[in-house]
Amino acid sequence: MNWLACKNPAWVQANDFSFSGLHNPGNTGNPFGSAVTPVTVAQIPGLNTLGISMVRIDYAPWGVVAPHYHPRATEILTVIEGSLEVGFVTSNPDNRLISKTLQKGDVFVFPIGLVHFQRNIGHMNVVAISGLSSQNPGVSTIANVVFGSKPDISTDILAKAFQVDKNIVQQIQWRF
Amino acid sequence: MNWLACKNPAWVQANDFSFSGLHNPGNTGNPFGSAVTPVTVAQIPGLNTLGISMVRIDYAPWGVVAPHYHPRATEILTVIEGSLEVGFVTSNPDNRLISKTLQKGDVFVFPIGLVHFQRNIGHMNVVAISGLSSQNPGVSTIANVVFGSKPDISTDILAKAFQVDKNIVQQIQWRF
Amino acid sequence: MNWLACKNPAWVQANDFSFSGLHNPGNTGNPFGSAVTPVTVAQIPGLNTLGISMVRIDYAPWGVVAPHYHPRATEILTVIEGSLEVGFVTSNPDNRLISKTLQKGDVFVFPIGLVHFQRNIGHMNVVAISGLSSQNPGVSTIANVVFGSKPDISTDILAKAFQVDKNIVQQIQWRF
Amino acid sequence: MNWLACKNPAWVQANDFSFSGLHNPGNTGNPFGSAVTPVTVAQIPGLNTLGISMVRIDYAPWGVVAPHYHPRATEILTVIEGSLEVGFVTSNPDNRLISKTLQKGDVFVFPIGLVHFQRNIGHMNVVAISGLSSQNPGVSTIANVVFGSKPDISTDILAKAFQVDKNIVQQIQWRF
Amino acid sequence: MNWLACKNPAWVQANDFSFSGLHNPGNTGNPFGSAVTPVTVAQIPGLNTLGISMVRIDYAPWGVVAPHYHPRATEILTVIEGSLEVGFVTSNPDNRLISKTLQKGDVFVFPIGLVHFQRNIGHMNVVAISGLSSQNPGVSTIANVVFGSKPDISTDILAKAFQVDKNIVQQIQWRF
Amino acid sequence: MNWLACKNPAWVQANDFSFSGLHNPGNTGNPFGSAVTPVTVAQIPGLNTLGISMVRIDYAPWGVVAPHYHPRATEILTVIEGSLEVGFVTSNPDNRLISKTLQKGDVFVFPIGLVHFQRNIGHMNVVAISGLSSQNPGVSTIANVVFGSKPDISTDILAKAFQVDKNIVQQIQWRF
Repeated sequence: MNWLACKNPAWVQANDFSFSGLHNPGNTGNPFGSAVTPVTVAQIPGLNTLGISMVRIDYAPWGVVAPHYHPRATEILTVIEGSLEVGFVTSNPDNRLISKTLQKGDVFVFPIGLVHFQRNIGHMNVVAISGLSSQNPGVSTIANVVFGSKPDISTDILAKAFQVDKNIVQQIQWRF
Repeated sequence: MNWLACKNPAWVQANDFSFSGLHNPGNTGNPFGSAVTPVTVAQIPGLNTLGISMVRIDYAPWGVVAPHYHPRATEILTVIEGSLEVGFVTSNPDNRLISKTLQKGDVFVFPIGLVHFQRNIGHMNVVAISGLSSQNPGVSTIANVVFGSKPDISTDILAKAFQVDKNIVQQIQWRF
Repeated sequence: MNWLACKNPAWVQANDFSFSGLHNPGNTGNPFGSAVTPVTVAQIPGLNTLGISMVRIDYAPWGVVAPHYHPRATEILTVIEGSLEVGFVTSNPDNRLISKTLQKGDVFVFPIGLVHFQRNIGHMNVVAISGLSSQNPGVSTIANVVFGSKPDISTDILAKAFQVDKNIVQQIQWRF
Repeated sequence: MNWLACKNPAWVQANDFSFSGLHNPGNTGNPFGSAVTPVTVAQIPGLNTLGISMVRIDYAPWGVVAPHYHPRATEILTVIEGSLEVGFVTSNPDNRLISKTLQKGDVFVFPIGLVHFQRNIGHMNVVAISGLSSQNPGVSTIANVVFGSKPDISTDILAKAFQVDKNIVQQIQWRF
Repeated sequence: MNWLACKNPAWVQANDFSFSGLHNPGNTGNPFGSAVTPVTVAQIPGLNTLGISMVRIDYAPWGVVAPHYHPRATEILTVIEGSLEVGFVTSNPDNRLISKTLQKGDVFVFPIGLVHFQRNIGHMNVVAISGLSSQNPGVSTIANVVFGSKPDISTDILAKAFQVDKNIVQQIQWRF
Repeated sequence: MNWLACKNPAWVQANDFSFSGLHNPGNTGNPFGSAVTPVTVAQIPGLNTLGISMVRIDYAPWGVVAPHYHPRATEILTVIEGSLEVGFVTSNPDNRLISKTLQKGDVFVFPIGLVHFQRNIGHMNVVAISGLSSQNPGVSTIANVVFGSKPDISTDILAKAFQVDKNIVQQIQWRF
């Protein structure tokens, strides 16, 4: 459980602990208008077992990072440029939405395992940097997990779960 | 972090470690046709810090336990009576649905932090017993967290996140 | 320390997370009149690192599960059928016996690392289901560990430890 | 979970981290011919959360530390003076006795949760020093837990568990 | 060990999870030419138990963050503006210096418990943002700990430890 | 994370859990007048994952164990022979020196991650035994890490960090 075990400490090099390019904007040309650039153990092998990672997030005007959660990490986000609406929802039974509009230099915390989202609420691009409390935080995006699984969850189950007609479930499933 | 710290061990009693009534069926007279009876640290104070809890789940015919996840626990379920369709979905990017139809005496595992669900696929009541790897596993039911938060997540955000019209989002929000 | 590391998540299958046959009674035709059917990581490979397992326990009339402890797990037990006397003993210096007679639907907790036992106190078979807070809880049965080790612990040591004649120690050692 | 939380670091003093007297022999004038002098969080408050403790053990000639286990700690022992027989027993199903005769300067490890014992095999007093991997390791001495609990475990249960007559069980129970 | 325990989840508010002002440069008018602005559990109470924090670091031209270590956290740093020399030293016996010159957008990792430092190697101000894998990472700056403790470590000890004359030790002690 | 995983428990032997020679004095014929004899997982393979190790420390008259810290372990030390000055320094911002003069039989605790040292303050050899809360505690000796890294930390950086002339930095660097 120690990074020394992963590679002989006599052989580690600076490249095992570094990454370049986080100043480059991600490509927000997608239906959500957002892009996440991760720097996790997949990008920096030396992060293994060290319990931390970083991401850059870009948002086009009105771009959204859709509701999702990290099963293994809390996220602490700071806004580098722009204005950002953020929120998370507490678990059952309260399901309280805790939300705030962030400005440049504001910091916000999304606790481990809770569904959260962000939205650019201005006409300019927004940039944020986050730290996450795992080298491999994991992401479950709700729309993809519930309506876009491979294979699909039975339409009947989702219709009952969301209390809607099956054709509405299918309409969302077609998108994901 | 030791149960002895919670109460002087010279004073603990059997009642601090016990609960009665798990043989009683839960009330499945609700839109989902299911009922969960938890036995966690809220019911047994002596469970504090011990990392385990138990639930009984009842399903009316075709009853569903809607997609949800436990942020702090893996669940191991066994079917006491009846036939049950179960599944979980892996996190991004694969979002694979791992599912199976269980019969009496079958056991299935829902790994920590992954969205999962169950459905009675027969004409008889189903009873299941689960162990969970936390005294306080937590539950986030997707429909309640995403469409039933208090206050609501902005309809615009959800319309973009699920790639549907706002009136469909509102239709689901009204239900939760 | 994450189940994803154990097998590529793109390759896991439902069979990696399931087990069949827990509805079958164990064979209680032994001197103790009890049988334990485990469902741990040895039976379900997908349990690795997930911190949970399950067992079914069968008790013939007056059958006993002899004093033992789990070095890595708390156990939460529920009685499916019958009446069961259960107890655990706290560590030094108090060595308090915390015990209770359980009926169908009752739940009881045996804290991690404490010696505990069960006995069927009726004329019918008893069935219990337990959850344990480790995928590999381990069992040390006192009689087997102390009087049945291979090779034997020196009779002199046990005679002094239990403050009895050596021939009594040997009599128990012959049994195990 | 950090010692700084236990007391304001601006107020801690050397006395919060020290103890005197471990050079003094314990009183071995008891049926076992041994004495344990613990230095745990009960003696040094500053040990709280730090995951370590120490004990001195004295053995009169042929003195025994009876079979016991520490639910929360591995023990590493070194012999300061004399010759010592030591052993531990692995858990089910193997129940292997791993034992050795130690001389002055020898070191031996008793893994967490496994039953172990020591015996002075010479005509001189033996002194040992152990480190334990918890500030509050706990001790369950088998004879006390199984035959000396308050109240007693039912004689019937122990007779069946150890496969002996009840009067032998009672004979041991009277001793503890 | 769960943030919900720290405050009733029905009462948490967005302010418990947010902080403002990280866009403001710190005051680098000090002998080191650097300033650290922390966002830890001291600034955001909701971070308690969540295992993450963030800092902004400002460096005047040629400014240095002196050798230090965090006993409870790995640090992942990204350069927002400027060029920065960074390095850490592995523990005994190798004591290898792993160093690199970072440009804007570069990311570097300082593993938990290892001494590390940074230096602005250009004529412009440098800004960096770091994530740390603890809500309370702690800092031990070598010069302050070794030469600036209150009271001082004995000059004799430090002279022997650093293999220099006492007057050199005293000269450094006077500075801290 | 369990020692059983490291070697099949059916194959472990007493030699996997033992070490000989801790009664032998270490060689203190070096500039510091001290010697550390470790008994960690490098000496006892069976210690793997068990969270404990032991060291013997010898001090010639006025011998010093220079300021160092263990990134992964708290140390509990007892003096077997002689008189020993010991101390540790708390982290920023207080940097308090907590110190004490120990006599034979005294015990002292050095909390995980804090810089500490010892000095023999008498005319006789001193012997101490310590337990450490990791099978692989790690050591970073300040002088070696800061002034003796390979390659050297830039003299400019250290001159600024310790607020001294470069030639003093170089003088210390030449020693390590």
